[in-house]
Amino acid sequence: MKTLKERILKDGRVLDGNILKVDSFINHQVDYKLMDDIGEEIYSRFADCKVDKILTIETSGIPVAYSVARNFDVPFVFAKKTISGNLAGDLYKTKVFSYTKSCQYDVVVSKKYLLKDENVLVVDDFLANGQAALGMIALVEQAGAKVVGVVALIEKAFQDGGKLVKEKGYRFEALASIEKMDYEGIKIKE
Amino acid sequence: MKTLKERILKDGRVLDGNILKVDSFINHQVDYKLMDDIGEEIYSRFADCKVDKILTIETSGIPVAYSVARNFDVPFVFAKKTISGNLAGDLYKTKVFSYTKSCQYDVVVSKKYLLKDENVLVVDDFLANGQAALGMIALVEQAGAKVVGVVALIEKAFQDGGKLVKEKGYRFEALASIEKMDYEGIKIKE
Repeated sequence: MKTLKERILKDGRVLDGNILKVDSFINHQVDYKLMDDIGEEIYSRFADCKVDKILTIETSGIPVAYSVARNFDVPFVFAKKTISGNLAGDLYKTKVFSYTKSCQYDVVVSKKYLLKDENVLVVDDFLANGQAALGMIALVEQAGAKVVGVVALIEKAFQDGGKLVKEKGYRFEALASIEKMDYEGIKIKE
Repeated sequence: MKTLKERILKDGRVLDGNILKVDSFINHQVDYKLMDDIGEEIYSRFADCKVDKILTIETSGIPVAYSVARNFDVPFVFAKKTISGNLAGDLYKTKVFSYTKSCQYDVVVSKKYLLKDENVLVVDDFLANGQAALGMIALVEQAGAKVVGVVALIEKAFQDGGKLVKEKGYRFEALASIEKMDYEGIKIKE
């Protein structure tokens, strides 16, 4: 996606530990116009698919899911990262390891909001080692629903996540694939 | 807001501990159309005000902030609940006590995304005791920015939050004010 790639090159910053900061327009401050365009782009890539629901994981995936849901005219669901007191009842649950935060956490979705045979498009802001995406896939599979595909706005293509999702037999799309990033700059696939 | 009130009466559920569950349409599964309408409603109430930025707090406030930001044609920012490894640099920071989770947590915003003299509209899904809203107000005040107002989709009007926000001299709006809720039902102000 050309506008996203240009924006990453313009405003993204590379920090120690393989961190690409896009917090001025994606995941702390959000440029709603770019997010609107992102929803349209993702819709255009899956317009030929039946999609009943958009699934993401809190927190930064939520604007993405909202924008995509509007384009498909379907609800979106955000999986939660811990079991809060407010999340009573039957849950689908899986464990996800976060390399960014060096900890494992539970990801849960209420059984009411992922239904058997639903066609679910999984979206998130980043995909690096793919742990969050694989966790969401596990939740959809537990529900007996179908993963239509997995979309990340930004893939760290030098890590394994995209490969792991595809090895599970699922379609994976990234709007911007980072081939390389360091203090010299950011290189994005054409 | 009539459609929100009707939806709460239809799909909201009251649980032990003063919990109003609206997770089928607001804060776990999200009805994007209702959220679009909510953005328009909030815009209409503040259309005569200068608004430069929308501020919310992760997680459930994010769809609200996105929808409102689109209507005002401004960016939105979501304050973060802990200091993650990804949030480097100078932060505005305050402490918020969550009665729901019985714990205190830090709320932070990067100093880059709340600027002096900006006009900031604070939005969230719920307001009960008002601690999250007061935390966001504190962040805006630290930045030397101006709170245009505070909006909650759902106010628990039998708790003190709305009063506390108004006592600080700020405009407070709720799209639905719950007067009373128990196993007999939910009563919303006309």
